Amino acid sequence: MKTHTIALIPGDGIGRDMTAAAWSVLQKAAGKHGFGLKGTEFPWSCAFYKETGAMMPANGIEILRGFDAILLGAVGWPAEVPDSVSLHGLLLPIRKSFVQYANIRPHRLLPGVEGPLKATQFDILCIRENTEGEYSGAGGRIHQGSSDEVAVETSIFTRKGVERILRFAFEQARSRRGKLASVTKSNAQKYSMVFWDDVTRELSAEYPDVEVTSYHIDAMAARMVMAPESLDVVVASNLFGDILTDLGAAIQGGLGFAASANINPERNAPSMFEPVHGSAPDIAHLGIANPIATVWSGAMMLDHLGEKEAAAAIMKAIEATTASGIGTVPGKDRTDAITSALLAAI
Amino acid sequence: MKTHTIALIPGDGIGRDMTAAAWSVLQKAAGKHGFGLKGTEFPWSCAFYKETGAMMPANGIEILRGFDAILLGAVGWPAEVPDSVSLHGLLLPIRKSFVQYANIRPHRLLPGVEGPLKATQFDILCIRENTEGEYSGAGGRIHQGSSDEVAVETSIFTRKGVERILRFAFEQARSRRGKLASVTKSNAQKYSMVFWDDVTRELSAEYPDVEVTSYHIDAMAARMVMAPESLDVVVASNLFGDILTDLGAAIQGGLGFAASANINPERNAPSMFEPVHGSAPDIAHLGIANPIATVWSGAMMLDHLGEKEAAAAIMKAIEATTASGIGTVPGKDRTDAITSALLAAI
Ligand SMILES: CC(C)[C@H](C(=O)O)[C@@H](O)C(=O)O
Ligand SMILES: CC(C)[C@H](C(=O)O)[C@@H](O)C(=O)O
Repeated sequence: MKTHTIALIPGDGIGRDMTAAAWSVLQKAAGKHGFGLKGTEFPWSCAFYKETGAMMPANGIEILRGFDAILLGAVGWPAEVPDSVSLHGLLLPIRKSFVQYANIRPHRLLPGVEGPLKATQFDILCIRENTEGEYSGAGGRIHQGSSDEVAVETSIFTRKGVERILRFAFEQARSRRGKLASVTKSNAQKYSMVFWDDVTRELSAEYPDVEVTSYHIDAMAARMVMAPESLDVVVASNLFGDILTDLGAAIQGGLGFAASANINPERNAPSMFEPVHGSAPDIAHLGIANPIATVWSGAMMLDHLGEKEAAAAIMKAIEATTASGIGTVPGKDRTDAITSALLAAI
Repeated sequence: MKTHTIALIPGDGIGRDMTAAAWSVLQKAAGKHGFGLKGTEFPWSCAFYKETGAMMPANGIEILRGFDAILLGAVGWPAEVPDSVSLHGLLLPIRKSFVQYANIRPHRLLPGVEGPLKATQFDILCIRENTEGEYSGAGGRIHQGSSDEVAVETSIFTRKGVERILRFAFEQARSRRGKLASVTKSNAQKYSMVFWDDVTRELSAEYPDVEVTSYHIDAMAARMVMAPESLDVVVASNLFGDILTDLGAAIQGGLGFAASANINPERNAPSMFEPVHGSAPDIAHLGIANPIATVWSGAMMLDHLGEKEAAAAIMKAIEATTASGIGTVPGKDRTDAITSALLAAI
């Protein structure tokens, strides 16, 4: 029996309950489809930081490297540990170290879920660059606290970085409905974003079967709300992808339904799967968080590991669950109840 | 009789029809309320560029400086003149030269207008920093076209720039419902955005009557769609404000209804009023563009010039027009028909 090794990082807040719920669903699907999942749990989190002074051990990345994939709950507990420490000490280094340059987030309404839009028919796949750009961390502050203070933050885009994410997006568009929207702000940012547009134009010649359109981020944000059905694959930089995928989460009914995969397409390091939502300190101990986003992320993990049938079975179970009205309204059903329904539907 | 001098820049595409429509409505309101409006039209546009090699004359800014305010239609005709030329040669220099640091955009549903959201009760005032930040234009590209190409784009935030826009926003919040949302991405951009958050925190002590909350841009984009009624005044950087105001335009039914003011609060240079929409080349000669955004911008201009009653009368006329079903659906009514209805309602 083939067995996949999974690093489990529950993290903070609701992350713990979410990974536990997802893990039980994944195990049941694995059992049914004849493969094994061997999980190893790592307690890396803000609590871990408060004990040890670091979000993960110095060799954390090396430890994770040995796994087939990583399933992460949520990271952050701002009241205790600043985000600059927690996120830059765990989440962001994993994305960068394992060159998980493609952050994929599907946005569509699950059956039975009420979104905030009148529109209900859309199926968008957002692909976000995940390793460079506006999240490069380059910059500084001078004359801090004085009236002459200046802060700068530099976005760095490389040909390699831009080309590989666009290629990935073109391939995804090819495997779906053949439409790609590339999102920049080249009318205002004339170096980074004009560069991105140039590379998009160059690559489009190699994908004559894909219809590619460039949009400005402002226009795309409006389009996701006004005409989401017009979109297929959307590709954007780290920051723009971050914004558009939270908007995508909103139109699909909220963060409780937003799954994501941080993919290393070359498969020379593990990929990481995590819900888009955070640790939600306000509801952390109430047992009412919705595990669907993490379970969906787990399905994306199985798909990535080649277990297509099990992944599809989990998606079917999610849809059967929400179609029956369970887990569709934030706070209505308890985490356990939703998990039981998912397990029963597998 | 008091007379205000207005520089009219119709610009490109639908901009010409929009300023003409707005101007007739403004004139009628002025007549009724006992003041004069003296307009001087400037043909600065992409067509002007193709004739003269510049979007405006070398002394364009000096010419405009003598006016009480500027009413602008739309700038840009990408098929003929790259945005990098048209916008950076006219729109953006005016905003910066006249230190129009506060870009104000109101987002609410006009009566009779169907938005894309199920929610209908919201009244948001977005305030966007308009002179620095992500639009600083600092950066470069090296090894262009090669596989080693790198592009950088640097956001520059100054204490003066951040403090003045935040003060302006706190004041606006104070004059409305007392709630201010400040939008950053300080969990990923640790120089510029942490700086903005720091200044927000410092200033909040001076405005104990204003309830200020910091949000990340991704969460705010989601909130505008999921809970727009929870927002009052929203303040953000140049780029984030740009994105949020297009989203604001979307939830209020589209760009046909999105007005804006580029304000110099110190009044040592003219402010500029313009719709959020662009020149819309695709419908430029069809006579079907909706002038309401430009008329609303004109009302904001009169308000800024101290003509509060006339401004209120125009807003009433806009509301009466849309309430009667005219100008509520894109493309249904012709520009003339909407303008006539507005004039009749003044
Ligand atoms: C927590 C934060 C740094 C992160 C990001 O912006 O990447 C999150 O918003 C996400 O979308 O995964
Ligand atoms: C045309 C463009 C440069 C401009 C901007 O981003 O400022 C526009 O989108 C706006 O919002 O006024």
